[in-house]
Amino acid sequence: MLVVGELINASRKAIGDAIKAQDRSAIQKVALDQLEAGADYIDVNAGIFVGKEAEYLTWLVQIVQEITDHAPCCIDSPDPKAIEKALAVHDGVAMINSISLEKERFEAIMPIIAGSDLRVVALCMSDQGMPETADERLAIADKLINELVRNNVPLDNIYVDPLVQPVSTKDSFGIEFLDAVAGIMTGFKGVHTICGLSNISYGLPLRKQINQNFAVLAISRGLDGLIINPLDKQMMANIIIAETLVGRDSYCGNYLGAYRSGKFE
Amino acid sequence: MLVVGELINASRKAIGDAIKAQDRSAIQKVALDQLEAGADYIDVNAGIFVGKEAEYLTWLVQIVQEITDHAPCCIDSPDPKAIEKALAVHDGVAMINSISLEKERFEAIMPIIAGSDLRVVALCMSDQGMPETADERLAIADKLINELVRNNVPLDNIYVDPLVQPVSTKDSFGIEFLDAVAGIMTGFKGVHTICGLSNISYGLPLRKQINQNFAVLAISRGLDGLIINPLDKQMMANIIIAETLVGRDSYCGNYLGAYRSGKFE
Repeated sequence: MLVVGELINASRKAIGDAIKAQDRSAIQKVALDQLEAGADYIDVNAGIFVGKEAEYLTWLVQIVQEITDHAPCCIDSPDPKAIEKALAVHDGVAMINSISLEKERFEAIMPIIAGSDLRVVALCMSDQGMPETADERLAIADKLINELVRNNVPLDNIYVDPLVQPVSTKDSFGIEFLDAVAGIMTGFKGVHTICGLSNISYGLPLRKQINQNFAVLAISRGLDGLIINPLDKQMMANIIIAETLVGRDSYCGNYLGAYRSGKFE
Repeated sequence: MLVVGELINASRKAIGDAIKAQDRSAIQKVALDQLEAGADYIDVNAGIFVGKEAEYLTWLVQIVQEITDHAPCCIDSPDPKAIEKALAVHDGVAMINSISLEKERFEAIMPIIAGSDLRVVALCMSDQGMPETADERLAIADKLINELVRNNVPLDNIYVDPLVQPVSTKDSFGIEFLDAVAGIMTGFKGVHTICGLSNISYGLPLRKQINQNFAVLAISRGLDGLIINPLDKQMMANIIIAETLVGRDSYCGNYLGAYRSGKFE
């Protein structure tokens, strides 16, 4: 399971304030905490700062990598110029969040990732808007994956995000998402799937519990990447338990190791 | 989701002691607590009392129904004589736990349930022993269901238990069980599936968490019955959340109702 720590996002007030105040240590603590909790990539997002996004994104990459012994970042922006500037200071192989099938976004981002060794989050979104069914997601995923491969992005670097939608909006939104994950993982061997979870519980009380359980379901359908808050201990425990329960943990070694190292406390 | 409360089992020390002491109120409290927590059936098991099982089972049915305004019991015994005696005092439609394809058990129990309106737990077990794969379970389920239907037990009264085995014994035991649930629910429309969960976590630490997550996975594959401790609040919450997440809760009504009535506290 690849875990992207989502906390360094300017839309969160504490982070937005720290960026504005150029408070390195506040940001660096969040980076270290996420890494310590098991994040593989540290997401950095400065999207709320119109006009200054590129500058702040670059700064975030630098201070995060400085404190984390160059842990890889997930550069989270729809703006190709901001991504390019952040990439220029990034050490090692970054993840780009994200490309989609929306024409404008697609054409702006593809030149950056074509032929690179970057990891890419590919959103199942097109100019026809947000897909609702598994089949609609699969149709977009098919086109995106083909385009990415045609542009020399290896399958193993592609993380398709089928896009979670709130089950409070439509009863079937949970199952359509899950079926999309299964369809992508069986239909395109070698590709990965990734998602953020929190939309599933939008509009409902006790969102954390819903998200934690939805993670378990998505993993059981093949999902192998998550953009989450790795400081949510129950979530991290559920990921390990889910992988054990669906046969992705040889001799329960990962589960037992996590237990012994106190991850479930 | 049909919930069978599993707590009145003589193999649990407090219950065994209460049965021996003929302590009605201790047993009756456990029955009421389970009903209050959402159990649909109250399992009664006096299996450890060799020679006295029938007498104690009958007593359990009587005192449980007396205090619960005749809530239905799940009569849990491999002994047809004990089942028959308990049934004779049972009011309403009981569940029988269980029949299997093991020749001796099958021939002893079938006459009791043939043509009746009893609900029946049908274990995927044969004289060839415990099945390991989904296909082995499906083969046994196929025979059991056919035999039960041939003996005038309606599909809607059959609860197939594919039998959970410990994931600590074999990595694939979780997924084989889940695939069996899905196979039975799609292959035999109208039949139900049920199981106890605790075997899945046998030999591992923090069993409750594993069991709670496995319930979510089994429900997502179609499972619609559980033999559990209904006083486990997280388990009961997970059942409701899982049904909501897989599209079995219209407009999240059940989830929101449970939340408002304080079930998630």
